Amino acid sequence: MSVEAFLDANYTAALEDLKAFCRIPSISTDPAYAEGIKAAARFVADRLTRAGFSGVELLETGGHPAVFGEIASDPSLPTFLVYGHYDVQPPDPLDKWKTAPFEPDERDGRLYARGVSDDKGPLLIPILVAEAFMREEGRLPVNLKVLIEGEEESGSPHFEPILEKYREKLRCDLVLSADGAMWRPDRPSITVASRGLVALDVTVTGAAKDLHSGRHGGSAPNPIAALAALLASMHGPDGRVNVDGFLDGTSPPDPRIVAAIEAADFDSDAYYREIGVPGAAPIGTGRELLIRQWLEPTLEFNGISGGYQGRGTKTVIPNSASVKITCRLIAGQKPDAVVAAITRHLEKRLPKGFALEVHRHGPGSEADFIDPDLPALKVSEDVLGELLGQKPLRVAMGATIPIGSAFRRHLGCASIFFSFSTADEDYHAPNEFFRLENFRLGMKAWTMLLRRLAETS
Amino acid sequence: MSVEAFLDANYTAALEDLKAFCRIPSISTDPAYAEGIKAAARFVADRLTRAGFSGVELLETGGHPAVFGEIASDPSLPTFLVYGHYDVQPPDPLDKWKTAPFEPDERDGRLYARGVSDDKGPLLIPILVAEAFMREEGRLPVNLKVLIEGEEESGSPHFEPILEKYREKLRCDLVLSADGAMWRPDRPSITVASRGLVALDVTVTGAAKDLHSGRHGGSAPNPIAALAALLASMHGPDGRVNVDGFLDGTSPPDPRIVAAIEAADFDSDAYYREIGVPGAAPIGTGRELLIRQWLEPTLEFNGISGGYQGRGTKTVIPNSASVKITCRLIAGQKPDAVVAAITRHLEKRLPKGFALEVHRHGPGSEADFIDPDLPALKVSEDVLGELLGQKPLRVAMGATIPIGSAFRRHLGCASIFFSFSTADEDYHAPNEFFRLENFRLGMKAWTMLLRRLAETS
Repeated sequence: MSVEAFLDANYTAALEDLKAFCRIPSISTDPAYAEGIKAAARFVADRLTRAGFSGVELLETGGHPAVFGEIASDPSLPTFLVYGHYDVQPPDPLDKWKTAPFEPDERDGRLYARGVSDDKGPLLIPILVAEAFMREEGRLPVNLKVLIEGEEESGSPHFEPILEKYREKLRCDLVLSADGAMWRPDRPSITVASRGLVALDVTVTGAAKDLHSGRHGGSAPNPIAALAALLASMHGPDGRVNVDGFLDGTSPPDPRIVAAIEAADFDSDAYYREIGVPGAAPIGTGRELLIRQWLEPTLEFNGISGGYQGRGTKTVIPNSASVKITCRLIAGQKPDAVVAAITRHLEKRLPKGFALEVHRHGPGSEADFIDPDLPALKVSEDVLGELLGQKPLRVAMGATIPIGSAFRRHLGCASIFFSFSTADEDYHAPNEFFRLENFRLGMKAWTMLLRRLAETS
Repeated sequence: MSVEAFLDANYTAALEDLKAFCRIPSISTDPAYAEGIKAAARFVADRLTRAGFSGVELLETGGHPAVFGEIASDPSLPTFLVYGHYDVQPPDPLDKWKTAPFEPDERDGRLYARGVSDDKGPLLIPILVAEAFMREEGRLPVNLKVLIEGEEESGSPHFEPILEKYREKLRCDLVLSADGAMWRPDRPSITVASRGLVALDVTVTGAAKDLHSGRHGGSAPNPIAALAALLASMHGPDGRVNVDGFLDGTSPPDPRIVAAIEAADFDSDAYYREIGVPGAAPIGTGRELLIRQWLEPTLEFNGISGGYQGRGTKTVIPNSASVKITCRLIAGQKPDAVVAAITRHLEKRLPKGFALEVHRHGPGSEADFIDPDLPALKVSEDVLGELLGQKPLRVAMGATIPIGSAFRRHLGCASIFFSFSTADEDYHAPNEFFRLENFRLGMKAWTMLLRRLAETS
């Protein structure tokens, strides 16, 4: 029987495996679910062993363990590392679920359960495919390692220590991520870039303590007014960042991604309706909107506070006011240089009577992007294009994908996101689901991918 | 014996009265001190009776009672109502006091105790003076009523109901307030104007809920940015309010007050040092500073909030951001018109993609000011000028004096502030004190004042 035929013949059993996996409440953020985490790690380890992986073990560095396994076929073949995570988001609010989050329910060609789309369904696919190869061909066309972590939904606090500690064991030529959703259900896509991140707090201080706004109003410096003026100076009228030096080191966006954006025919009105923005669309065309979201850096205010925030009114001129800022960075921007440019901008504009403090959170991260000429990227695109009859879009991601840059830093290799969940599958919300047609499609695609990667290398 | 000689001869007893009064912990904001409040009201009532007042009673409207008493001399003479308050601020922080707040301590010509300057010392003075007149002359030169409330330090929530309910009993030609400190210890002053107040909250809303700043950053509307831009548009580069229609109805400031400001030779550097403002003085001259503080309206931001305000960082584009605003109003400004002008200003500038909500707190109050030609004002100035050898300054007050406008609205009469505490006596801070020379001076001044008011009317 062919690998494809094996997968077809065993589809019902595969779906039962997925349901069994989804019954395990592996919520990593809540210590009450420690048993669920352990059970899910065991489930993955057992499933890897059953599939024919060897060296299956739990990699420990103090948090929830990551599960490792490998199938070494031939040292002359390239080695790929499959990434995924077995932990899931909390299911709250529970009363919004139509069926219980940990009792998988199949309806209308979808499987509903917490974690089914993010990331239990997608990560199970390459394991099932590897099993089919082993059963039918006795070997894989490439060397395959698998690393399934258990803390993705709680910020992966032990992920980099794992990469550090097990660097030799994890060494590979390329990471194939089974996590990271496709952008839209109606168009195949491959994510080729994600933005970096740097975070800071800015505090403006006036008088030594809060003052009475009657006695001192009009004469004492008001830090909310000063902060507001500073913040207002940081964007131009079109909403773009207006800070000298902010864009230093950047180049114009990859024309292939711009072409993909043009091909995507994105509807900006629909976007603003979906996120519930009142009135007319602030950015009128989908092209412009996606360029902003994917290919331009941002400087967003995440929180602001100062003075009295309770009910009613208090006649106070506050001593200080603060804002939290995060910047999403594009290729070429260095976190250090960005923080320095912002600090210079603020210092230069600080009015008389105030002190300024800029506090940076952590080192930040640069943007991550795949070499557009990477052969494996073309292979992935070909596979998706042939299976779906439509060339996939090369998309960028506004968000920061920490694993991409972590793998690049620790293992020195790129990551290709080859996932079969879709961004609309409510994976951090009630009634998470996974399209079962994509479960089948994913198995076909991973089968083709592993074969083609062997041919290309 | 003359009234003056009686006061001199009985000074020690008067000081003992003041100490006894200060031993009563009459904190109105803290229900734990209900007994202290009751005891202080009784103390005032007893002292009025002992001084020769009749009709002494506690006026009740549900809160802490106000104490009333009167000495009716002759229906053809004018009637004055003395205002004061027997409640005090909480003494916290206790560890900052050199001696216990409710154990009055005399040192360096000052009496230290919570409430001694605000307002127990100043309010006792006219009672002692009335007693001296009654003992030595058997009558007062005018008709005198006294109203001492018990909720001033907790916002006088029942004061207007008292004026409403007891309007007939309280009817008078002029209020003489024993509350309201003199501006500076080295220059006598009379407060002739205070600013009005109107308060509002402004909320800017973007998307229907908080959004991920990675996925949506650059495309979704950020309400903190929009609010900051709106706030930055409300003041000009010199810090003055820059809102069309805000000044409608106002006239240039009273030249007598401007002259007083010029005579005051106020030191703006010292002011900024005192309130602990870093760097150079934002307003370089004392004249300009006092004009801003006393004679110009303000639009101050009292509090701002939106998005994530906890520790660390959260990559969110918040759904909304809010600011609390209070405006101090000068003569001619109407609270309704001011709120309408601000609302128009904001609506006109609101960028696409946001909704705006303006919520007003209460009706607000107009500025209060004394007719500059009121004969009693000149009498008060003459008394202070003769006693101190220096013509008092006519000063305005940046703050709002609710009792001034309350008496004007309910009793239809002006209030003259004739107090002998000074603004530097730490009356809302630890180690509150009262200058005993002003205790004596106040008795002389009230004696002269009552005599002169009889002659002038």
